[in-house]
Amino acid sequence: MAFTTNATITTFGGKLFKLTHASSTTTTPMNLNLYLPPQALSTTNPTKVPLLIYLSGLTCTPDNCSEKGFFAHRASALGLALLYPDTSPRGLNYPGEDDAYDFGSAAGFYIDATQPPWSTGYKMESYITRELPAALFGDAEFGRYLDGDRVSITGHSMGGHGALTLYLKNPGLYKSVSAFAPIANPVNCPWGQKAFAGYLGADDKEAWKRHDATELVRGWKGGDLKALVDVGTGDNFYKQGQLLPENLEAAAKEAGVEGLTVRYHEGYDHSYFFMSTFSDDHVDHAAKHLGLL
Amino acid sequence: MAFTTNATITTFGGKLFKLTHASSTTTTPMNLNLYLPPQALSTTNPTKVPLLIYLSGLTCTPDNCSEKGFFAHRASALGLALLYPDTSPRGLNYPGEDDAYDFGSAAGFYIDATQPPWSTGYKMESYITRELPAALFGDAEFGRYLDGDRVSITGHSMGGHGALTLYLKNPGLYKSVSAFAPIANPVNCPWGQKAFAGYLGADDKEAWKRHDATELVRGWKGGDLKALVDVGTGDNFYKQGQLLPENLEAAAKEAGVEGLTVRYHEGYDHSYFFMSTFSDDHVDHAAKHLGLL
Repeated sequence: MAFTTNATITTFGGKLFKLTHASSTTTTPMNLNLYLPPQALSTTNPTKVPLLIYLSGLTCTPDNCSEKGFFAHRASALGLALLYPDTSPRGLNYPGEDDAYDFGSAAGFYIDATQPPWSTGYKMESYITRELPAALFGDAEFGRYLDGDRVSITGHSMGGHGALTLYLKNPGLYKSVSAFAPIANPVNCPWGQKAFAGYLGADDKEAWKRHDATELVRGWKGGDLKALVDVGTGDNFYKQGQLLPENLEAAAKEAGVEGLTVRYHEGYDHSYFFMSTFSDDHVDHAAKHLGLL
Repeated sequence: MAFTTNATITTFGGKLFKLTHASSTTTTPMNLNLYLPPQALSTTNPTKVPLLIYLSGLTCTPDNCSEKGFFAHRASALGLALLYPDTSPRGLNYPGEDDAYDFGSAAGFYIDATQPPWSTGYKMESYITRELPAALFGDAEFGRYLDGDRVSITGHSMGGHGALTLYLKNPGLYKSVSAFAPIANPVNCPWGQKAFAGYLGADDKEAWKRHDATELVRGWKGGDLKALVDVGTGDNFYKQGQLLPENLEAAAKEAGVEGLTVRYHEGYDHSYFFMSTFSDDHVDHAAKHLGLL
């Protein structure tokens, strides 16, 4: 399905498009933002640019990071497109869908739910890995700007969980991965346990593990992990044990997986003030593996 | 009066302080944000850093630009503090204070009102040029980080009007000025006419001129203006004649005033997407005149 353009905003020499399309996966309209750098839009020498997908955290829409993440600053210099999908289907009106910030709307956790009623529309894993890129790269208006063979993924908090797990589950689909304050071991934290119980069933703990970065990294056979993770030591969710990046580090080490860099930044919190400080670094990390650096 | 610290946020290697103090000028509590770069906070080699004051536009609080302007990106690299004052007194409960986005709350226009009831508390010119810097530079906690002799000023929209007029009225107080999409000739635009009629009286047009950058630049005797102005050609307020930067340019030219650079950027709008694209440039402009570059 084609994309409807709700707004076109000039920024950092390129353009940010606020888009909507009808998703057959979620059965709803889905919003997303797409940033195209000046290199893609050049009228004299247009270049198909690689893409960095940014998965947002709990409560977010595509707009939060577009406004406050500062990724376009460095992406513009290097010639990298940015894709900001939404965090869940919206408006399905399932019972309880809007009752909590950490389940239902804006809390899709980038998995395909198996439990009714969520299993009908809450299929964010399929949406992000299959329907959305296929629609975008095949789109008559936007596809010509993008090199669908060069894609990396990043994300924040719940979106960091999403980036890490979609990367680990799909070797070769993305050229690299990074995450800010990811929920790195959801089967062992309250946010993950609540979401996985609701979407996957309270009893099927083996299913939970198939969506947990710390469990998945143990089975990684893809060589150098090409993974960068940043965490703030002043992050209250880190201190409360929602993120557990040390568990991811330990699992990678035990499994002999190389190429995971986890950095702890003194005093930084969970906010966009943290992310925007290091978004240049995450763009550089992706750019290195996408052939831009 | 001392400042109350409501939040301390680590970002771009420094700290953003969300502060409140009791203002005798506005007769209200006033919020402000202060960013201190790492050079000021160094425990081994602390440096008194110069300050760039950023005046916000209509509807804004100190938070908007702190979150979306990305001035800290470049200020952090160069060692420049950033001050984000509020845009008006709040909570005076004058009749009509909260009725419009362009008059009253969040629309103080950086002038001292002469018309009752506004003349009691709406004294943003005195607050920004006198009370706030005196309080900050003399503060026991924050004063030691700041070099009160090296201050520049910038702003957006209504705050661009504020930056330009406070600079032009006070030669020597600020080392340079810049503005994004400023209301450059308020006596000739609807926003300015409404505000000046309300705060200064509908009939005293001579008083209006004393707060108009285009009028003030005609009398500038301070030499090189050291002024940078950026405007987006896709800015609806520019297209509607609210900004009138050409009038400022023409007046400077007629008066033989040198050192005004006005740049028109194709397609950019009035938003923080525009400002954040060029905030590095405005920090560099200030830094050059503050001895940092």
